[in-house]
Amino acid sequence: MENEEMKQIWKIPKPTLRRLPWYLAFVKLLKGKGETFVSSTQIAKEINVDSSQVAKDLSFVNISGKTRIGYEINALINVLEDFLGFTSQHKAFLFGVGSLGAALLQDFGLNQYGLDIVAGFDIREELAGTNINGIPIYHIQDFPSKQKEFGAIIGIITVPVEKAQEVTEQIINGGIKALWNFTPFRIRVPEHIVVQNTSMYAHLAVMFNRLNSMNH
Amino acid sequence: MENEEMKQIWKIPKPTLRRLPWYLAFVKLLKGKGETFVSSTQIAKEINVDSSQVAKDLSFVNISGKTRIGYEINALINVLEDFLGFTSQHKAFLFGVGSLGAALLQDFGLNQYGLDIVAGFDIREELAGTNINGIPIYHIQDFPSKQKEFGAIIGIITVPVEKAQEVTEQIINGGIKALWNFTPFRIRVPEHIVVQNTSMYAHLAVMFNRLNSMNH
Repeated sequence: MENEEMKQIWKIPKPTLRRLPWYLAFVKLLKGKGETFVSSTQIAKEINVDSSQVAKDLSFVNISGKTRIGYEINALINVLEDFLGFTSQHKAFLFGVGSLGAALLQDFGLNQYGLDIVAGFDIREELAGTNINGIPIYHIQDFPSKQKEFGAIIGIITVPVEKAQEVTEQIINGGIKALWNFTPFRIRVPEHIVVQNTSMYAHLAVMFNRLNSMNH
Repeated sequence: MENEEMKQIWKIPKPTLRRLPWYLAFVKLLKGKGETFVSSTQIAKEINVDSSQVAKDLSFVNISGKTRIGYEINALINVLEDFLGFTSQHKAFLFGVGSLGAALLQDFGLNQYGLDIVAGFDIREELAGTNINGIPIYHIQDFPSKQKEFGAIIGIITVPVEKAQEVTEQIINGGIKALWNFTPFRIRVPEHIVVQNTSMYAHLAVMFNRLNSMNH
């Protein structure tokens, strides 16, 4: 049964997982406007996705709509937030308190979505003992002892690119299970480790390129 | 000729555009180690992409490798940085100085990649006249006059989700050509407008889901 469920979770395509937060944002908007039901057609129109795709995406979460009425909005919000992991807190460490790392430690609004950054680490001695937004910064050599204390499962990587692989290996050895990689470096990890890449620079490059081609 | 070039740029597949910054990061690393040449095989091995794919990706930029020696690293870095738009500054306005917006206005390191955020806008009167990291914050009603002054082409959207579409329309009318959308809302734009979505929440959702399925 547990195994069945596991397979169930694994089968969810990444594009579905990326669309679900859009649906969530939209139905929360509707709720704010006082609506109580939403149809997959309504969602489809707003998000610019096929309505059969919306229904298919929502079939992965534990909710069923009523014919001609659609989904109950409150229930849909609860189920989506829960399904997406936004309702439980996931402890994270941040590695590399440079410009990007420090900005992420500011109140970024990510804790509302289940990400609880409990500490930052850096190689620079002078940062140890300071804090940003109440989040303590430690020297990287204290990672093993702090990991014992906090038991973080997520590592946010904002170190300089030439340190990305080294830090990755160090923190996986220390028990981190998932890496949120903000560097433009393709880190290599064992199969059982989750990696999510968010390369701002790559997004910028795509945007600049599209802009240039529009203007020619 | 101009038209030819335009088509050339348009033909670049998005996956190629997303991989080029990885190659750039890697060859910069090699340069730091004192290397002068790099082969597509070396890049392929490091990035975990097929070596023929690397050669194909690099065929879009104006550089050719030498048989058995590969690409000259300095030339490759220059060509890639230039091609990706990182060497010229693109003026941007940021809309919505909440937690995420304020964090992005901190020194985020994006100006090294060609993004020059020249002002922030918010609806809250009390923010007007303040600044973050030297970047002035104005009331949103001053956008048209500030747009005349600065001539920004990129709008970074960090407003609350329920304002995303309204602000989008307002700033496109004011002359913004490209939108970097950080909200989880799917904004709708005319065809000639560039949109780049960076949804941190969606990335978090994918990561949480993979983590959960690993742990079951």
